[in-house]
Amino acid sequence: MKKIVVDAYGGDNAPIEIIEGAILARDKHKDIQIILCGNENEMKKIVGNRNERIIFIDAKEVITNDDVPTEAIRKKKDSSLVRAYDILKENDDVIGLVSAGSTGAVLAGAIMKIGRIKGISRPALAPILPTKKDNDVIIIDSGANIDCKPINLLHFALMGSAYYSIVYNNPNPRVALLNNGIEEEKGNELAKEAHALLKTAPINFIGNREGRDFMSGDVDVMVADGFAGNALLKGSEGAVLAVMSLLKKSIKSHFLSMIGALFMKKTFRDIKNRIDILSKHGGSPLLGCKKLVVKNHGSCKRNNILSSIEQTIILHDNNLIKNIEDKLTKLAN
Amino acid sequence: MKKIVVDAYGGDNAPIEIIEGAILARDKHKDIQIILCGNENEMKKIVGNRNERIIFIDAKEVITNDDVPTEAIRKKKDSSLVRAYDILKENDDVIGLVSAGSTGAVLAGAIMKIGRIKGISRPALAPILPTKKDNDVIIIDSGANIDCKPINLLHFALMGSAYYSIVYNNPNPRVALLNNGIEEEKGNELAKEAHALLKTAPINFIGNREGRDFMSGDVDVMVADGFAGNALLKGSEGAVLAVMSLLKKSIKSHFLSMIGALFMKKTFRDIKNRIDILSKHGGSPLLGCKKLVVKNHGSCKRNNILSSIEQTIILHDNNLIKNIEDKLTKLAN
Repeated sequence: MKKIVVDAYGGDNAPIEIIEGAILARDKHKDIQIILCGNENEMKKIVGNRNERIIFIDAKEVITNDDVPTEAIRKKKDSSLVRAYDILKENDDVIGLVSAGSTGAVLAGAIMKIGRIKGISRPALAPILPTKKDNDVIIIDSGANIDCKPINLLHFALMGSAYYSIVYNNPNPRVALLNNGIEEEKGNELAKEAHALLKTAPINFIGNREGRDFMSGDVDVMVADGFAGNALLKGSEGAVLAVMSLLKKSIKSHFLSMIGALFMKKTFRDIKNRIDILSKHGGSPLLGCKKLVVKNHGSCKRNNILSSIEQTIILHDNNLIKNIEDKLTKLAN
Repeated sequence: MKKIVVDAYGGDNAPIEIIEGAILARDKHKDIQIILCGNENEMKKIVGNRNERIIFIDAKEVITNDDVPTEAIRKKKDSSLVRAYDILKENDDVIGLVSAGSTGAVLAGAIMKIGRIKGISRPALAPILPTKKDNDVIIIDSGANIDCKPINLLHFALMGSAYYSIVYNNPNPRVALLNNGIEEEKGNELAKEAHALLKTAPINFIGNREGRDFMSGDVDVMVADGFAGNALLKGSEGAVLAVMSLLKKSIKSHFLSMIGALFMKKTFRDIKNRIDILSKHGGSPLLGCKKLVVKNHGSCKRNNILSSIEQTIILHDNNLIKNIEDKLTKLAN
């Protein structure tokens, strides 16, 4: 029986949405057991008699976005997140951890409690975005590592490639380096040095690509330092929201457009489904740790938690961590 | 009579679209004279007898995107761009230069031929984007300066603020620093140090903002190093294109949506107009030089050149350069 530990008190909609998501996953997958960390009495009330294959671990504290991450991991020993990390660390049959709590704390906990894969200096977050074609794209790192060295970007590329291969069953994802131009000599010092490293890495490196190529469908794995990667990710999200908002506003201001919108329900649903791709995949894995950690966004709901748990299962069943280790070995030889 | 010099052979649609744009501007503004640089015989053929208030300067060479910028400025002395810069430099009554040629060459020419405003170490490009509200936003720097120091970002903020004030007649534009979180302590080393400088600058600094705030309408001037700024700008542009492309594809695949789209013509026009804001403004000024330089995108058409020339007039009539110098003086005291 695979066990997955869930931080039931992380996120804006905790604990109800988190717990309900865990129950959905338990119902759908007969070979898993869920370990819920949080206020035991409250959790038991929510679960009621639906407690088959659910284990409760009591934790009285909660880590919030206001906490300083490393301090919180060190001091809030009775928090739902730290308890969850303890469970993950101490039990070989616990295959992964799911949390919708503070990104900084999830990251700090992973490094301090679980540790990095040998050879990886910086774990990274790799969220998924839709493209205008049928494939999706991931960006790594999206903000876990703000000041990076070239070697970090090389590791991001290896990890992102391994992750994309599994999630999309694509043996040879196209890996690009975010840059301010596609020519090899372009870029800041970091990008130039990273480019040289990526060229010889055991991945399908297609060269430099600009921000505008991110959602073009021509890139599968976009590699960047966490600062520029964060600007790209959030800028893209913000631009999508802006267009949808302009569309809505304009429809409301033209009578004929309002009529037209009634006919376009299927199209609006298509767009919504395509944009919500990240929710469907249940957040971003934290790549580079010795065990699987999947971080969902703070505002996630039960279906997203279900997806996070399912992502954990897929990544486990396909040996993501072993896969990353193999790539590192190949690189060393 | 104000004179504006135009690089008639820069850009994908040169020389015809550039020259026709210049003629549109000449017809609309009775107090300007246009100096066209390029192959004199060819230009005269295009202009024909519409040559009122147009001066031709012969230049046999063309600088392309394949040229190394600084080298091209130094060696291609008979190119349309270098001739245009010579004219701009040598004549006090020439108020500005418009080019749709290679960005690198326009930038190199500005620095090598015209020189920087005293105190400004790095000129910067500040393109305009729409937001989901009624205001527009500029990003400075969008890619002219790839490796930056904190002082560069301070100058970008001063110049961007002065520019936005004039274009939008807004005495107090909201200036934000692009960062991976809004808290003051967030950011890479560059952002942290720049934040400290911006706090005491004579501008309306509203603090750190994330990429997702770029098109939210809550920021007027987004300050960033050229690498992250380029990722944000191009990522946003790419995301807008991706959404429009998904929309189009979905409409085509649902019969009812196709009917609906017929009713929504006004809305699609609204969106197109709002998104095309940069074209309307005629490209990005290169801020920080001793004279006005407006760079249009390579694929621009006649109407964009008209806008570039009109932008040059507005920035001249409102003393942009004096305004930037005043802000620098204020900073020094």
